[in-house]
This record gives sequence, structure tokens and C-alpha cells, in this order.
Amino acid sequence: MNETVARAASASALLTDLYQLTMAAAYRSQGMADRPAVFHHVFRNLPFGGGFAVAAGLGPLIEYIEGFRFLPDDLAYLRTLTVDDRPIFTDDFLDHLAQLRLRCDIDALPEGTLVFPHEPIVRVRGPLMHCQLLETALLNVMNFQTLIATKAARVCLAAQGDSVLEFGLRRAQGPDGGLSATRASFVGGCHSTSNVLAGQRYGIPVVGTHSHSWVMAFDCESDSFRAYARAMPQNCVFLVDTYDSIQGTRNAIEVGREIRQRGLELRGIRLDSGDLAALSIAARQLLDEAGFEQTKIIASGDLDEYVIADCKQRGSRIDVWGVGTKLAVAKDEPALGGVYKLAAIGDNGWEPRLKLSDSATKTSNPGIHQVRRFSDERGFIGDLVYDVLLGPEPSRRGIHVADSRPLAFPEAAAYEDLLVPIYREGALVYDVPSLTASRQRTLDQLAQLPEEYRHLTEPASYAVGLDERLQTQKDTMMTELRHEIASAGKLAE
Amino acid sequence: MNETVARAASASALLTDLYQLTMAAAYRSQGMADRPAVFHHVFRNLPFGGGFAVAAGLGPLIEYIEGFRFLPDDLAYLRTLTVDDRPIFTDDFLDHLAQLRLRCDIDALPEGTLVFPHEPIVRVRGPLMHCQLLETALLNVMNFQTLIATKAARVCLAAQGDSVLEFGLRRAQGPDGGLSATRASFVGGCHSTSNVLAGQRYGIPVVGTHSHSWVMAFDCESDSFRAYARAMPQNCVFLVDTYDSIQGTRNAIEVGREIRQRGLELRGIRLDSGDLAALSIAARQLLDEAGFEQTKIIASGDLDEYVIADCKQRGSRIDVWGVGTKLAVAKDEPALGGVYKLAAIGDNGWEPRLKLSDSATKTSNPGIHQVRRFSDERGFIGDLVYDVLLGPEPSRRGIHVADSRPLAFPEAAAYEDLLVPIYREGALVYDVPSLTASRQRTLDQLAQLPEEYRHLTEPASYAVGLDERLQTQKDTMMTELRHEIASAGKLAE
Repeated sequence: MNETVARAASASALLTDLYQLTMAAAYRSQGMADRPAVFHHVFRNLPFGGGFAVAAGLGPLIEYIEGFRFLPDDLAYLRTLTVDDRPIFTDDFLDHLAQLRLRCDIDALPEGTLVFPHEPIVRVRGPLMHCQLLETALLNVMNFQTLIATKAARVCLAAQGDSVLEFGLRRAQGPDGGLSATRASFVGGCHSTSNVLAGQRYGIPVVGTHSHSWVMAFDCESDSFRAYARAMPQNCVFLVDTYDSIQGTRNAIEVGREIRQRGLELRGIRLDSGDLAALSIAARQLLDEAGFEQTKIIASGDLDEYVIADCKQRGSRIDVWGVGTKLAVAKDEPALGGVYKLAAIGDNGWEPRLKLSDSATKTSNPGIHQVRRFSDERGFIGDLVYDVLLGPEPSRRGIHVADSRPLAFPEAAAYEDLLVPIYREGALVYDVPSLTASRQRTLDQLAQLPEEYRHLTEPASYAVGLDERLQTQKDTMMTELRHEIASAGKLAE
Repeated sequence: MNETVARAASASALLTDLYQLTMAAAYRSQGMADRPAVFHHVFRNLPFGGGFAVAAGLGPLIEYIEGFRFLPDDLAYLRTLTVDDRPIFTDDFLDHLAQLRLRCDIDALPEGTLVFPHEPIVRVRGPLMHCQLLETALLNVMNFQTLIATKAARVCLAAQGDSVLEFGLRRAQGPDGGLSATRASFVGGCHSTSNVLAGQRYGIPVVGTHSHSWVMAFDCESDSFRAYARAMPQNCVFLVDTYDSIQGTRNAIEVGREIRQRGLELRGIRLDSGDLAALSIAARQLLDEAGFEQTKIIASGDLDEYVIADCKQRGSRIDVWGVGTKLAVAKDEPALGGVYKLAAIGDNGWEPRLKLSDSATKTSNPGIHQVRRFSDERGFIGDLVYDVLLGPEPSRRGIHVADSRPLAFPEAAAYEDLLVPIYREGALVYDVPSLTASRQRTLDQLAQLPEEYRHLTEPASYAVGLDERLQTQKDTMMTELRHEIASAGKLAE
């Protein structure tokens, strides 16, 4: 038992499921390790019942790949693993891991790109064994970052341009769960965070003043505000709900008047419980009557996009929204069901592959995919997923992935192919944007998404189709596979 | 922007909310930093609608405290923070942080201890500023570990002694979200994990064989099983649902017969989709008829305690349960709402403190608490939270924290005080148990919890009371505070 965790989990090649390593060893022993393969990272359903998702996680994924090495400690540990007292891994395999450097081609959606079901967020092409060794970490990083960036974008849409502060660290899923949630929240559109480590690591603006315990450490609330103003004169935002939010607002105003004599300003008050919309209206009136029209009202306490939208609808006077747990863990849907599926394998030329399922949406799509997004003067109109093996130029016609209706995009529509080169034969060929640039991309992309797809609940369904040649190929493969299974079943009876 | 994350997030003193640091600076400037204070980490509601929770996280919390230092890089970052272009922190304060060593007394529940609402999981007593600096990381680690250990205990109860394998890493909340979920799952009773890093770091048994992509990399499923058996002869567990689970089982049997000729055994098959209970019954019959009575059936695919209980109830023949996403992120309730509340502060003698709330259950409990658990020959019968300041020996009578009914424990009942010393003036005085010992404690504690509290849904409500002297003190304080607020409100009108 060694509980020392000095090296970050996100920097270890052992951040993987054991079966990736047993398969890697098996591919190698069967002479298949270097067969060319293509895997797609896709999800099947939009999270939160929403109309879009925001791709995120490429930055941390690149960090992971750049640091991908099996270190001597890792190999020593793998050497200890046994089944029935026999080692799982041979010395030859472990020696191979010791010198292994990933040499995949990777294409991906830049962070902040809107993404929809069945569209690859990442496409990995390379030696079968290398593709397999990346799977778990890739899914871990990309699923969670995409989930939280999407949630944050929804929260920010509900806030209609108001500042959104993320402060979920205390109830996030572990230290790094908190750190990566803060990162993704910023990509999704949040303005700042309480998380100091995320400020240090990622340059995200950090904010914060005081909590209930500050107030409780004094004999009376007004004295606690006075003392805070003495200690942090530029940063006077008082939390007013420790005992009673309205009386707390009056106490904040009282101290606000005192500090104004010294040339200081009451920057804000924070409401953290109760009927936030009603309290904000009452507090705004008290503040305005007392001449504190510039004092901001900050609200927090179990907020999410639905509560914010409800407050807005009820005429709340809240200026800044502090959003914690429900954002940082995506409380209503805390995992994105992204998968990483083998889609083609080659030896002499590529062969497409698919995994059958009883459920049509869980049957994977074969081929080597690119996503083409069409747009007109209103913005995005729909996407086609196409197989680059099926000819150089895809059609503008496809079959909708959800309801199988035919799709046709006008000849006049502009288009863009969304997956961009990230790695070529293991070498990074991508200029990683700043986090601020990725956040801006989210905002720009959402501005191009017509309003009917941005509704928090029951949005219109954005058109995503498989290019018609890809659909035909998939149908043929499914028919053949089902026929084989039926024949085998008959033989067995 | 620096995306390098070499040092683990869990090892940084900046793993905190900014307001902890602004409060720390303010306490110091107001001469209050060294005032003695007591904080309790408690939660208010049992997660998952269940009848118990399993305390966990003390091991990682101790690791965090042992490594707690503000490093030069941390201080350099804090020096850059400004409001209105003025530094938030003074040089004096940052110099103080540079040499700061925590010197708190900490008492806590050993990992694997059953815990109920309003009982401190951790009690921190020390200089006000030190207590405050610990808050965020303590909540982050303890809330998540306790949440997942509790979920795992529920899953293992549903599995009725069958092996439970955790494999949620790919959809966990970030790299460390996955790592810490695996750790807590083991404390809660899981037997093994797919997470190799958790194996290396924590000594948890790791397992795994192959995924769908292995099968899809071959032209036919039987060939994929044959190749796997050649590569990993001791570890033949075949995933049979890539195309069709029943036909896959037949193919596994076919290859099982072949390898038996070579002295190898078909150890197991894995079902990963479809009606798992029905498929397991059909697969068991096929296996038994073919002479593979010893071959285990492993099931996976969106499992949780409810699905497992349902499969059991339907007579499933599953031997091993692989549980992923729904355990690793606690999908139905992904955050434990634990709080860290100031409960007493001292200068000349201790003064209790409480935070009022409109909701009775959110009003905090004042004093310095210990938890006394009573038991008889059936096992645990109930707990009393008492204030060590209110006399050396608590009564056996209290008021139920949820419904205010009087509680009285028999004179004959045995009892144990649950919080044990972990730190004294910053020095570790606790012998940290192995993870295996903590897991065993969970099993032992559950065995002492009468069956009516262990139901997955609508369990009986375990009796937790405030000792009657503590309740009286709390009532008096609430009355006084409400009176003060009413008077202040009247003055303001």
C-alpha cells in the first residue's frame, strides 16, 4: 500500500484499464500490434436533454500524450501481476513498453466546437496496439471535459450574459475532478472561479471574499463586515445570509455608509439561501434607496441553468451567479456516455468494422470519418458524417442518424470540415490555442447555432446525417453480419 | 496558460477556494488568526435514499495535510492576484504562508465507519486561520470518498457476497476522479478494479481481459477467442456480446473445448448488453450442458445496486458483477452535500456558535462534538452526538435530529465513542490502517447494522440524537439569535 500520490494521475501511462494492456500484449504476441486501425470517440445522446454539446478536453489529452511513457516503476508494478501465480506479462512485452512511443495520427475537434451525436470528437489512426493503449485516458479526459463544458454553456446561456462564477471544488469528484471541472467550465463560458489551483495552472480569473464562518467568528454581523472592510478594503463583498438575508443587507448598507466616508465602496452583497429572486428584488430596493445603486448582487446556493432561468423569468435583480456543485459534477447527468469504437482495420487496404447492437443507436458506424458542417446566413444548418475512404468528395445528401429521414443540404450552403490534424505519426502538428481562445470559440459557435437549438428544454433537433454512401455501406455490413449470425445459430441447433 | 500538471492537484496548498485565503489574510490582519476554533465536517441527508453512509477519505486527507506547504511557485502566483490593480495579499501575509505549518488537533471517524446525518466525520480544532485553510480540500476529499464508499457498499449488498469489480475509469470525473473513485469503491467493499494506476498506487487487485475491439479486429469471433487463448492462456474470459450474446457463448464453448485439449480452462464469459438475467440463465444452461460448470458468468453494462437486485430477484446466474459509470460517479446522486461549519470559538474559554437557517436541518449544531454509538446483542441501536464542553459524561437521552422525538438508550447498552485522535498540534498521532483493513471495517460495521437499515430503498431510519444538554443549548442559542434579528429588524423600520 502506497498512498503517496506525488505524480499526477493524469501523467501516468497506467491511467488505463488492465484489459488495454492484456489486449496490447495479446496483439503483440499474435503479430497484430502494428496493424493499422482507426478508432472514433463519439457519444450517442446529447447530455441534459439539450440541443448541443461543446467539445472540450483536447488540451489535457495532448498533455497526456506528450507525457506518455511507461516508467521503471510502472513496469516493475506490471511485472508483479499474476493469474494463477503466473505472470500476466512477458519480459519481452514489458521491454517493449519501456521503449514505446505512441505514433498515431490524431484528428480532433478544436475545443469549443459544437458537437452532436455520432460525430467523432477524436479520431485516432495508427498501430492497433497504440490506439488501444490510448483508449481509457482519452475517454476519461474527453468525456468529462465535454460534459462540463456543455453544462457550463447551458448555465451561461441561462444567465443571458451575466457573469457566472464557478465554485464547485468542495463537492467535486476528487481534487482533479475539481480542477478539470473548473477548466471545462471556463471553456464552456464561465467568467471566473473560486479554485485557486485552476487560477495558477490555467490562468483562469479567481474571485472570492468570505464565508459564513467569517461572520460567525464575530459577536455581531456588522462587526464582521467592518473588520472585513478594514482587512480587504478593495474587496468588500459581504455575505448577508448567515442569520437573515434582509437584516444582513441592512447591516451591509450600514457598513457601506461607514466605509464610503473613507473613500471605499460596497462592491457587492451575496445571497446564499432562501428565495433568491424575491430576496434580490428586496435587497436591490434597500440598496438603491440607500444610494448603493452600483453595488452588485451576487447569488449562490444550489444554482443551475434551470434555477437561473426561473429567477430571470421572475424578474430577479441578480448581477452575478455563483454556481457550484450542480455545475462541477453535472449533477443531473454526471457522466457522458462517450465510447471509443474500432471503425476500420487494415493490412492490405482498409476494411470497415462495426459493432452490432439490438439498439440501432448503439450500432457503431464503420469507416474513417470526417464531419462536414453546413451553414447559411442564419448560421449552422446541419452536419454530415462521411467516410473519407468512400471517395474524395462527399455528397450533400444523407440519412438522419436519429430518425432515418433523408437530409439534403442546399448547393448554396457553405461548409467546413471540423476534424483538424493534431498528431501525425506521433508528432504534435497542432498549435494548442489558449484557454481564453477556446472559451471564445464556444461563444462564437453558440452565436452561429440558431436559437431553436439553444433552448434549455425541448430544443429542436439539429440535423446530423450519415452521408448516403456511408449509410449504404453500413446497411450492407449489418445485413451481412446478421445473416452470418443467423446461419451460425441454425448450425448450432 | 500553463497546462503542465506534473504535481498532483491533491498535493497543492492551492487546492482551495480563494475566499479561504482572503479570510486567512483578514483574520491575520485583525489579530484573530490564532483564536482557537472548532469546525465539524457533517452532512445533513443520507445519500441515495439509503439507511447509512460509510465514512471514507481519511487516508488521502492525511496525505494532503502531511504535504501541506505553500511552495515558492504558489506564493509567486498569489502575489500576482489583484483587485483594481492593487495586490490582494500583502508581502507580510505571503511570507507568513511560506513558513506556515498546520498545527490543528484533528479527530475523525476511521475509514469504513458507518456514519449518519449530523455526526462529524472530521472535527478540526486549532487556530482559526489554520482550520479555515483546510476547509476546501477536506470537503473535496471527504465528501467524494464517503459518497463513493457508500455507493459501493450498496452495490456489494445487492450482490449478496458475489465479487464486484469496479471499472468506471473511462467515464469518471477526470483522471483523479477515477483514481479516487476506485479507492473509495474498494473501501466500500468492491473486490477488484480495472484501474491499473489504482493497483499500483493502492495495491487494489486489478483484473481485465479484452474488449469488443479485440473481437472486431478479427474476421470472425471464434478466431478472436482462439487468438486470445494463445496469447493469454491462463486468463481466458471471453466477451461474448459483440454480435450476439448467445451465439457468442456458443463460440466461447467451441473454443473452450479446443483449449481444454491443451490443458487450459475457459475461466469465464462476459455479458455486456441485453437482458442480463435472461441471457445469464440461457448461457449457464449452454455452458453446463457442454460440461463447463466451472466457467464463471461475468455481467457488465450500466449496472448499479438496483439492476443487480433485480437480476438476483429474477434468478440470474451471474457470478461476478462489473460495475462502471453508475458507481464511479455515483450517477443517481453525484455529490455528497457535506459542510464544514464553525461550531465553537475561544479566547478566554470556548463559546459555541451556530448558523441559523429557515430549514431546521440546515441550522448547524454548536459545541465540540463527539459521537457515541450504542449497541446491544442485535448490533447498533443508535447514536448520540454530544458536546464535550457540557460535562464529562453525556446522558443516554437525546432528541432525534430528524423528527425531534425523545430518544433513550438502555442502561445495559454498550457504547463506543467514534471520533479518534488523528492529529495533535499538527503532529500525526494515528496509525493509518491499510486499505484492506479499512475495507474489512466496512464489512464488519455493516454486519453490526440491523437488517432493516440496510434495505436499498425505504430503509428504517437509524436513531441519531443530540444529547439532551446539547439540544437545550442549541434551542437557547436559536431563541436568542432570532430575538436579536427581530429587534434589529424593528429598529430598521
